[in-house]
Amino acid sequence: MNYYPESILKLIKSLSTLPGIGRKTAERLALHILHAPMHEAEAIASDIIELRQKVKLCSKCFALTDTEHCKICSNMNRDGSIICVVESPTDMAAIEKSGVFKGLYHILGGALSPMDGIGPDEIRIKELFLRARSNDIREVIIATGTDVEGEATASYIFDNLKILLKNLKNRDMIISRIASGVPMGGDLQYVDQVTMQRAMEGRRGF
Amino acid sequence: MNYYPESILKLIKSLSTLPGIGRKTAERLALHILHAPMHEAEAIASDIIELRQKVKLCSKCFALTDTEHCKICSNMNRDGSIICVVESPTDMAAIEKSGVFKGLYHILGGALSPMDGIGPDEIRIKELFLRARSNDIREVIIATGTDVEGEATASYIFDNLKILLKNLKNRDMIISRIASGVPMGGDLQYVDQVTMQRAMEGRRGF
Repeated sequence: MNYYPESILKLIKSLSTLPGIGRKTAERLALHILHAPMHEAEAIASDIIELRQKVKLCSKCFALTDTEHCKICSNMNRDGSIICVVESPTDMAAIEKSGVFKGLYHILGGALSPMDGIGPDEIRIKELFLRARSNDIREVIIATGTDVEGEATASYIFDNLKILLKNLKNRDMIISRIASGVPMGGDLQYVDQVTMQRAMEGRRGF
Repeated sequence: MNYYPESILKLIKSLSTLPGIGRKTAERLALHILHAPMHEAEAIASDIIELRQKVKLCSKCFALTDTEHCKICSNMNRDGSIICVVESPTDMAAIEKSGVFKGLYHILGGALSPMDGIGPDEIRIKELFLRARSNDIREVIIATGTDVEGEATASYIFDNLKILLKNLKNRDMIISRIASGVPMGGDLQYVDQVTMQRAMEGRRGF
């Protein structure tokens, strides 16, 4: 590689830090950036800087935003009485892509994992309970992951929301968990045991 | 995608202009850049700007460089009496990777292609002839591509170097062309007809 000038080698090295970009792809990208129209190259650089300067967390749901409230929280067409609890902005993105949910989100910023030192105070569970106290909230859907950490987080939230409801007399609120089971289009023979158990336990009347 | 803030959408869009980076990969890269250490994100941006400001062409061989002469031209261990003529810096990189060539290069910046309006004046052929006039040059290896344009360029250079040599009496110089034939490790049954013809024509005594 040392036949390239230093400034190309530097860019190849910094592009290689990106996920899924190896040395060869980084070389190809760097040479493309070298020959691309000036405004395209500058756009990438300035958009990176702008991203890091502007993006923060929504003060209500902790989604990514560059304004005070995120696009979903400030959308008057969304149903403010349902909160969907997810671990991360990418999980939120996955639900949004499905287009099926019209309420608001609450992004925890992780899942409980005592082994990694992540307890209830390390993620935004307190903030969720604070939102849930409001009389406007009719339902909380717990959509944390279906791995051990996600399940533990779901149980913890469920138990504590129950206690909260008991203390707030006459307060009616549904607490639900997204369904687990066989993925659509999936071949039953490739489904793992735990998922199959969940699919059987969660069976519904036709 | 409109659940992401504007500054993320902007970066996704500008990253999508890179070759081999689709919308989904761009989304993943943008979210990585958002969560990466600040110095890594800044390095990518500043390295892009630096690349565009500093990289120019070597005044001798027209390779990419950020100094007056490129690393190869300014390396005293390289043999200045052999010039290898290539179309592009990436072709030069391919030869350098093989590690077999110890001379200098001449980067044409393209190949003759009358259909696209690229004649001898559009690429750096004049500059090559100027270098070839020097008595120091013992050999010119023509390593343009083996497609129609590359072959035509090779013929043009060969013919005109011959005329040049005739005019410069008592001037001795070898003009060679890289070998064409069956790639190493290649299965003969998959070799195309033209390559096979070349391999037979170019056969050598054992």
